[in-house]
Amino acid sequence: MSELRIAVVGAGLMGSDHIIRIENRIVGASVAAVVEPDEGRAKAALAEAPEAVWFPNIEAAIAAGGIDAVLIATPGQFHEPVLLPALAAGLPILCEKPLTPDSASSMRMVEAEVATGKQLIQVGFMRRFDAGYQSLKELISSNGQGELLGLHCAHRNPEVPESYHNDMLIFDSVVHEIDIVRFLTDSPIKSVEVKAMKRNSNNHEGFNDPILVLLTTQSDVLATVEMNVSVKFGYQVKTEAVFENGIAEIGRTSGMNTWFEGQIGTAEHMSFKTRFAAAYDAQIQRWVNATKRGEIDGPSAWDGYLAAAAVEAGLEALHTGQRVDANYASKPAFYN
Amino acid sequence: MSELRIAVVGAGLMGSDHIIRIENRIVGASVAAVVEPDEGRAKAALAEAPEAVWFPNIEAAIAAGGIDAVLIATPGQFHEPVLLPALAAGLPILCEKPLTPDSASSMRMVEAEVATGKQLIQVGFMRRFDAGYQSLKELISSNGQGELLGLHCAHRNPEVPESYHNDMLIFDSVVHEIDIVRFLTDSPIKSVEVKAMKRNSNNHEGFNDPILVLLTTQSDVLATVEMNVSVKFGYQVKTEAVFENGIAEIGRTSGMNTWFEGQIGTAEHMSFKTRFAAAYDAQIQRWVNATKRGEIDGPSAWDGYLAAAAVEAGLEALHTGQRVDANYASKPAFYN
Amino acid sequence: MSELRIAVVGAGLMGSDHIIRIENRIVGASVAAVVEPDEGRAKAALAEAPEAVWFPNIEAAIAAGGIDAVLIATPGQFHEPVLLPALAAGLPILCEKPLTPDSASSMRMVEAEVATGKQLIQVGFMRRFDAGYQSLKELISSNGQGELLGLHCAHRNPEVPESYHNDMLIFDSVVHEIDIVRFLTDSPIKSVEVKAMKRNSNNHEGFNDPILVLLTTQSDVLATVEMNVSVKFGYQVKTEAVFENGIAEIGRTSGMNTWFEGQIGTAEHMSFKTRFAAAYDAQIQRWVNATKRGEIDGPSAWDGYLAAAAVEAGLEALHTGQRVDANYASKPAFYN
Amino acid sequence: MSELRIAVVGAGLMGSDHIIRIENRIVGASVAAVVEPDEGRAKAALAEAPEAVWFPNIEAAIAAGGIDAVLIATPGQFHEPVLLPALAAGLPILCEKPLTPDSASSMRMVEAEVATGKQLIQVGFMRRFDAGYQSLKELISSNGQGELLGLHCAHRNPEVPESYHNDMLIFDSVVHEIDIVRFLTDSPIKSVEVKAMKRNSNNHEGFNDPILVLLTTQSDVLATVEMNVSVKFGYQVKTEAVFENGIAEIGRTSGMNTWFEGQIGTAEHMSFKTRFAAAYDAQIQRWVNATKRGEIDGPSAWDGYLAAAAVEAGLEALHTGQRVDANYASKPAFYN
Repeated sequence: MSELRIAVVGAGLMGSDHIIRIENRIVGASVAAVVEPDEGRAKAALAEAPEAVWFPNIEAAIAAGGIDAVLIATPGQFHEPVLLPALAAGLPILCEKPLTPDSASSMRMVEAEVATGKQLIQVGFMRRFDAGYQSLKELISSNGQGELLGLHCAHRNPEVPESYHNDMLIFDSVVHEIDIVRFLTDSPIKSVEVKAMKRNSNNHEGFNDPILVLLTTQSDVLATVEMNVSVKFGYQVKTEAVFENGIAEIGRTSGMNTWFEGQIGTAEHMSFKTRFAAAYDAQIQRWVNATKRGEIDGPSAWDGYLAAAAVEAGLEALHTGQRVDANYASKPAFYN
Repeated sequence: MSELRIAVVGAGLMGSDHIIRIENRIVGASVAAVVEPDEGRAKAALAEAPEAVWFPNIEAAIAAGGIDAVLIATPGQFHEPVLLPALAAGLPILCEKPLTPDSASSMRMVEAEVATGKQLIQVGFMRRFDAGYQSLKELISSNGQGELLGLHCAHRNPEVPESYHNDMLIFDSVVHEIDIVRFLTDSPIKSVEVKAMKRNSNNHEGFNDPILVLLTTQSDVLATVEMNVSVKFGYQVKTEAVFENGIAEIGRTSGMNTWFEGQIGTAEHMSFKTRFAAAYDAQIQRWVNATKRGEIDGPSAWDGYLAAAAVEAGLEALHTGQRVDANYASKPAFYN
Repeated sequence: MSELRIAVVGAGLMGSDHIIRIENRIVGASVAAVVEPDEGRAKAALAEAPEAVWFPNIEAAIAAGGIDAVLIATPGQFHEPVLLPALAAGLPILCEKPLTPDSASSMRMVEAEVATGKQLIQVGFMRRFDAGYQSLKELISSNGQGELLGLHCAHRNPEVPESYHNDMLIFDSVVHEIDIVRFLTDSPIKSVEVKAMKRNSNNHEGFNDPILVLLTTQSDVLATVEMNVSVKFGYQVKTEAVFENGIAEIGRTSGMNTWFEGQIGTAEHMSFKTRFAAAYDAQIQRWVNATKRGEIDGPSAWDGYLAAAAVEAGLEALHTGQRVDANYASKPAFYN
Repeated sequence: MSELRIAVVGAGLMGSDHIIRIENRIVGASVAAVVEPDEGRAKAALAEAPEAVWFPNIEAAIAAGGIDAVLIATPGQFHEPVLLPALAAGLPILCEKPLTPDSASSMRMVEAEVATGKQLIQVGFMRRFDAGYQSLKELISSNGQGELLGLHCAHRNPEVPESYHNDMLIFDSVVHEIDIVRFLTDSPIKSVEVKAMKRNSNNHEGFNDPILVLLTTQSDVLATVEMNVSVKFGYQVKTEAVFENGIAEIGRTSGMNTWFEGQIGTAEHMSFKTRFAAAYDAQIQRWVNATKRGEIDGPSAWDGYLAAAAVEAGLEALHTGQRVDANYASKPAFYN
């Protein structure tokens, strides 16, 4: 297969980004179909991918043929009705996180995938493709500074829209740490606890931000997560790892240093788009390459399920103020 | 008074350091007396302060006259029997932290001081004199990045002797953060909670290090403290402050940068002696200057009492795994 | 044209890198031909580009048809016999630096290109595509810190093979600064002067390294260049720019920070391959994109000629110890 | 001698700073006399040193007795008439740089000192007491990265008064690098050359700043010095050292890091007063301590002479644009 023909489902913020990415920066793939009910969005997307065909729904796209893989970029609550027909058609899928909004529906996706007899779903936890996290993962695996004892994570956004509410801190944002902590430690989240920080007075009424989330893995690594979506100064995602014999830190901005008006300065990111641009590109290039080999090369549907279950524990922890254990089904042998 | 004549009580590790400091780096003061029951230690100390006189106990030193102030550098459990006669003699005192080991005895010291009618006790929380913490305090006070919402502290030692045990993590080490968090926020610690991190396998049996301590101030600022005394790589005390509109960080090592063998490097501290050398000097110089004016210029006996009460909450939190509120007596008007 | 079919000339170190790059990381292009007299090298290259055809010389490749563009990756002294037939065939060319080894031959290439009536040659000064230099160029253009007054450049390699000799410091290495200083200042090099630094005793006999090169632009910007190819610690290319009101610096390594064994460290590059990996990719992607539009998007044959003439001044400066002015022919209107 | 009684000569900018320093931060010394013809300045100085006595000239101060040492803080052209009577009186002297304005007068001071039979003069090249330069000196001496091959120095001021003129770039400012390069390399300056950088248009008419100065030591180390006194952003003095096997850099600002308004920032110095505050203190404390032992502990009159002779070469280099060798008399055995 020389060129992977991709159907991109959803032409909103993330979908249109992915369309531009596939057309301009990904080798060996092209956008063959845009699946989007909104005609205006669809047409805007087609301007970036002139050879793609517009379909109002995934069933129509599959029926028309001519697609080798599906990239799902709609919000999480709309994933299941796309995943099921795509799985039924035996198509490889890259599904933006979350796999689905809760563990029950995620488990249904796992079961549907198992039923196909082949791993077809990769979930878009793109941080796993970030050079910083990969360096850290290597240091952990090498045991170069002894065993990993703890992690301090910070996830800071300059601002969020008014529609962003308390629960989204967990299911939309902390979900990234839930996955990456597991990726780094190779151990699922055992329990979640949420602590209030002093509320940022710039926030809209009823929105309590920032928070401190404590994640403990089954391997007993404690991860602190400052989840903070209205800190104005910039966009920052960083992790400090505490080992038996040393410390490592990733996520510090780099670039040109300036000396100006009494200060040494380096520009901070203002958006995930620049902070994780290379990670998004790497994720999709590796997915394209793996898909051509008939494999996935990243987090699986099972990873998506584990994240969904840990998010449920996180939401309960947020609501109750208690430490809440995550409940996981047994891992199907299929994913070993 | 041209030269402040100081009696240094205790000529162990800290005491002998202070003797060298006063004799060589502090303007307007000299060591007039060394109070130390151990003759060997006393003689070693006198070699650094040849004009000082040796006394086996504080009472003898006071009786002999010729001292203007007292610096107490013995372990905390021995402070009370020195403080009381020194207060009775109306002598200004710089007392190494902790004031005393528990809140009941600290309250006795407060009462004894109040009875003298004059503030005579300053407690040796020397971090308040560190340039980094002072910069951070200024930024908080200026409101330059909005209100302070949270703090992330790390207190890391390369190693501790075998005699160092679990409770010392709180009363010997975290006590510094208990004071500095209050100093920075201008608000006492409301509650303490302790979380286990994965245990460092290099530790001696029964010693569970590192830990994560959560301090909440009465003003609702949450401070996370990674307390870690066996991390080998070096000695590091740092604080990251989260404001409504920005972030600030103090405690990063500075000095010569080298490019060598594939790495850009900067030497990290290996001991509190270099990390806080300037803070110790500044603390004592300012105490000497203030003493000559009949004042104190640093944390008071009341600050010492507040720290002792918060440490008690911390110990209970360590032992029970629960969030524990600190109990404080009412502040005597004397300290307003 | 959907896919640009490229003939790569030379399958040595640089050529094989470019073949892997085009096949795996460049969108919209493929290696259609490998032009390489050495059969072993050619076969190794074809393993990376299985659909490419092997030709022993450029004439055969052109005669066979099926190529849209030529990438020349042989040493500089072999460029002219490839450039001339490629120009005659009207093929767009990306030619590794230097265009040719001296200004007379470079001028012949300029004339041959002018004779075709169209700009076909782009020269591989890839630093122009490095994010650091581009940030610096933007700051200069914006006048954000006032006018640029001077540059301090360092070009440091861990080591070079024994075959590397004194003149190569200028024509192989400083040639990069000759081009980038002109790119940043938008002004050609007016004069060159070379100063000895203390000789590195690790060097092979007769090789005098490092040296200090002073470049002055026609716009009066002075650039100092420390050219140093045996400094062991790593590979570093950096530039500090002095403006009327501030300073900017590019080229400092970034990545994971570690605290280990008494030192804060960040890994330094050990090779141009990692330092400029992204610049090489960007250069070729932009060349492919521009070529499809019938344009070039980078340094032209005229830039190659200017560099060759400044290198000649540099060699004379190296040999004589004098300040030497560069001599340039008038710029053909063709390049305006 | 318990307290060194110092006569401070000159109560201008530097002199009054030194008076405050000695009275408040230097152990074992006090200002016993202020020698200053201007009554207003003298009275302002006496407010900082209430026990000092005012004298209009050095002869009167010596005649009155009661002084153990002399600190000369007047401009260089006024040093000789103070140095001679102080030497004649056998008093130890700390003389602000330069020793005298030219090599002939400096040689007279050397001869006058030799005639006393004892080293009495220390010259105020305070950079030798800066922690950064001392770290670098240790690295050079240890040979830890191989031999030193070259130095890149930058000396940047935010601005200078209109009275500051071209020659002052050499005799007032570069003189610091002339001394410190010799201190670091343990080898006198062999030759000096000056290159124009592009002129800063903010400068007053006739003032050509910045310049690049090339210093070569007798041991063949080449030092580049960017001398730049109107760069607005701050005050910066830094040195990058090139070794056979690595690089080291001193002079980068440290302190609190902030993330604010899209930028990571650290405050830069704005004046030599903060940049070298600790160096000035250390210089005077060590001079006081050494003086009590009957020694000097810093640059000697001979160092002052060597600097004066190299400055003469530097001025000729500035005026002629040529490389100029420094001429030195033979070193008297007295200084070995």
